[in-house]
Amino acid sequence: MRQAEQAADAWRNTQPVQRADFMEAIATEIEALGRDLIAVTMAETHLSEARLQGERTRTTGQLRMYASMLREGSWVEATIDTAQEGRPDLRKMLMPLGPVVVFGASNFPYAYSTAGGDTASALAAGCPVVVKAHPAHPRTSRIVAEAIERAIAKCQVPAHVFQHVDDAGYDTGKLLVLHPYTRAVGFTGSLSGGMALYSYAQQRPDPIPVFAEMGSVNPVIVLPEALSKHGEAIARTCAASVTLGVGQFCTNPGLILGIDCAGLRRFVEVMGQEVAQVAAAPMLHDGILRSYSEKRSRALAAKGVFEAGSAPNEDTEHLANATIAWVSGEDFLRTPHLHEEVFGPFSLIVLCRDATQMQDILQSLGGQLTCSIWAEPTDLQIHTSLLALAQRKAGRIILNGVPTGVTVAAAMMHGGPFPATTDSRFTAVGIHAVRRWVRPVCFQNFHEAFLPEALKNRNTLGIWRLINGQWNKEDVT
Amino acid sequence: MRQAEQAADAWRNTQPVQRADFMEAIATEIEALGRDLIAVTMAETHLSEARLQGERTRTTGQLRMYASMLREGSWVEATIDTAQEGRPDLRKMLMPLGPVVVFGASNFPYAYSTAGGDTASALAAGCPVVVKAHPAHPRTSRIVAEAIERAIAKCQVPAHVFQHVDDAGYDTGKLLVLHPYTRAVGFTGSLSGGMALYSYAQQRPDPIPVFAEMGSVNPVIVLPEALSKHGEAIARTCAASVTLGVGQFCTNPGLILGIDCAGLRRFVEVMGQEVAQVAAAPMLHDGILRSYSEKRSRALAAKGVFEAGSAPNEDTEHLANATIAWVSGEDFLRTPHLHEEVFGPFSLIVLCRDATQMQDILQSLGGQLTCSIWAEPTDLQIHTSLLALAQRKAGRIILNGVPTGVTVAAAMMHGGPFPATTDSRFTAVGIHAVRRWVRPVCFQNFHEAFLPEALKNRNTLGIWRLINGQWNKEDVT
Repeated sequence: MRQAEQAADAWRNTQPVQRADFMEAIATEIEALGRDLIAVTMAETHLSEARLQGERTRTTGQLRMYASMLREGSWVEATIDTAQEGRPDLRKMLMPLGPVVVFGASNFPYAYSTAGGDTASALAAGCPVVVKAHPAHPRTSRIVAEAIERAIAKCQVPAHVFQHVDDAGYDTGKLLVLHPYTRAVGFTGSLSGGMALYSYAQQRPDPIPVFAEMGSVNPVIVLPEALSKHGEAIARTCAASVTLGVGQFCTNPGLILGIDCAGLRRFVEVMGQEVAQVAAAPMLHDGILRSYSEKRSRALAAKGVFEAGSAPNEDTEHLANATIAWVSGEDFLRTPHLHEEVFGPFSLIVLCRDATQMQDILQSLGGQLTCSIWAEPTDLQIHTSLLALAQRKAGRIILNGVPTGVTVAAAMMHGGPFPATTDSRFTAVGIHAVRRWVRPVCFQNFHEAFLPEALKNRNTLGIWRLINGQWNKEDVT
Repeated sequence: MRQAEQAADAWRNTQPVQRADFMEAIATEIEALGRDLIAVTMAETHLSEARLQGERTRTTGQLRMYASMLREGSWVEATIDTAQEGRPDLRKMLMPLGPVVVFGASNFPYAYSTAGGDTASALAAGCPVVVKAHPAHPRTSRIVAEAIERAIAKCQVPAHVFQHVDDAGYDTGKLLVLHPYTRAVGFTGSLSGGMALYSYAQQRPDPIPVFAEMGSVNPVIVLPEALSKHGEAIARTCAASVTLGVGQFCTNPGLILGIDCAGLRRFVEVMGQEVAQVAAAPMLHDGILRSYSEKRSRALAAKGVFEAGSAPNEDTEHLANATIAWVSGEDFLRTPHLHEEVFGPFSLIVLCRDATQMQDILQSLGGQLTCSIWAEPTDLQIHTSLLALAQRKAGRIILNGVPTGVTVAAAMMHGGPFPATTDSRFTAVGIHAVRRWVRPVCFQNFHEAFLPEALKNRNTLGIWRLINGQWNKEDVT
């Protein structure tokens, strides 16, 4: 952390184009690792080659997206109010917080680990990063860290803008969060893990922001008209989403709500049949499999919960079998643990008595990353309050689609009210993820020569600026 | 809080222009209170008529500024990525968090109290507000609350978008922060008060954001060339800033750093003489005066601290006398309590051994709202690391000026690293203060008809939007 602190001033003063070169060099170095990296990660995580190829492309894509953002430059939100009667010259822009500690995620060994979205956005913001490798894929993390170190050498950026801590101990994580030089923390993982880090950060003499993305049950609501018209197709699409990647996505749909009717009973049946055809598969690591088995069993043992379908599993010690269960709205509402995430290929369908109960159930849930609604236009015209409630519960509302598959785009929101994350005001995906690591700094009455480039009169960077209330790319005159 | 929660959906769905009308109606109602309001507040706070007239103008100006922001509309940060190969249609905008609890500040009975900046920005964001009146000016708060209630009636907005809690008890504040329907908290006041609320918020089953602005010592650095050229004038300007409004501003300059030399000794002398001519004056309330007297005495009693000048005070039970003291850099560094704010008309001048010690002292301070630097261009060329450090310590850097006088403008940053505030990423002043109370919500694959107006294809609001990476005011085609 001392080394990160020492690198902080140099890194914050690095020209945006140099930071962009560095982000791109990391992407190139990761690509140069070729199939060797994939093979190591397959062995460590049991994820498929195709999945890992895709995830690596996403990871290098993210790095290049932040490079583009830096080259374009407007992300600093330069805001200028020139001197007027009774008002001094004021110029404000976003600046880096300082050293950021990133905890790698087990379920995204590339895209949310060592060179993943948190690292990339923090580096782009101008913050040195210290990554705590996830103990489930230490070799992958080390290989990617070495790729970043090669990029550091090639780009001649400060040596300690990136550091890698390869230690499985919880104490190391705690020390990193408590360290006086740590200015912010990024985490993707379980509620218990995220809340532990969050509480360490609050215990500091100087609390620091922790952005922890802690998962969610991602409710899927199937409205009557859509159910009636396309029930079986929706059931098949949902089954594919639940079982995608052995259910190990934070946007996995763990809860499906519908109003009880023959169509919904058929929906339950189809989803059950679909998942029964999915081969049991290994999960990321033993701890996750154990947790899945326990939570799945506990859910199935709850009063009023019935299994709708389940993949055969001869080897429960090593494989997870996808499972669909169903329960009545009454039983769901009276069983709090059914509201919690079962991380893995499990989904619970709730047969609600009526629209009011469906609304009550959505209201009873904590904050969510996503809420999906399958609806025909007539459904949406009728269920307006449900749509309003979904917007208060979740960061992303999906119409006629499944929550898995988080597109990396500026308009993506990957975040949501607690307990989905510790701060609903930020996204972990897309260019706006950089805002977690920056703060505004205002320069009052400054000499032109001593202002940051983005705030000088001449707009040499060609960026969008808010000048006296107007967005433009003009010089200040 | 239940009433606020019930008003939340209606208020979030109110058209921006209606919200703007309401903000303006509040401003008009407050103006209509005329001198009667000022008289009540003078009696409650001992602030002067001129000061209160100015503060009321600032308050109504803030309300109208947020109205303008709503009418212009781009603040929602509409971001649209249209469907492409492998990417669904994604549309994101900022939406209100829900009910916000605002704690009135004692030192700004209008501008940071009942209808002040926190209330105005939260209402503009679309959040219902519950104000806890500051017990030091309950009548002022009640009168302003009634003005807001008249505006509610005239504008036919939901009755409980604003509610006023007139209760001096700490327990009431705690209950408001802990209430399940509370979604965020705004506070301006002491470190102990702000941290109490912050810790309640962290103890909730679902932690919520608390933006607490808790003051700061606002270091002023006088660099050698500036001292040599304009030392006496700077001393007089600083003395006026320290004593302005009996020192009861969160941006009051409580610490002045210079490198020891004959010029700095003369600077100390002039500041001492200046404040000795300022009549002792009543503070906002007894508690603040008591705290000032205690902290001032403690500072003056510290080893190596010498009084440079002090206003005569015959009535220490009711009046505060402005005081300037000085201390060596060594003694300052070894006396932690001298680093803390003495809220009131007090400032400590630190005679630093050299530039390195001045840097060490700035480094030793906690986060600050402001850092002021008096410098000639040659000073800035020499002391580059000091300028860099100031940017890491404070939210606003002022060149050749004093920190008091916080202009309400988009480019203003009123905030800073802990303990100046609980979250350095937000400002409490200017249009961007609204960001404390909003979060992004993404709509994926939505029917045009069910999208919020700001995200529809046709840009009927005429707002700036980021469409497929380009800022423009176009329709989506």
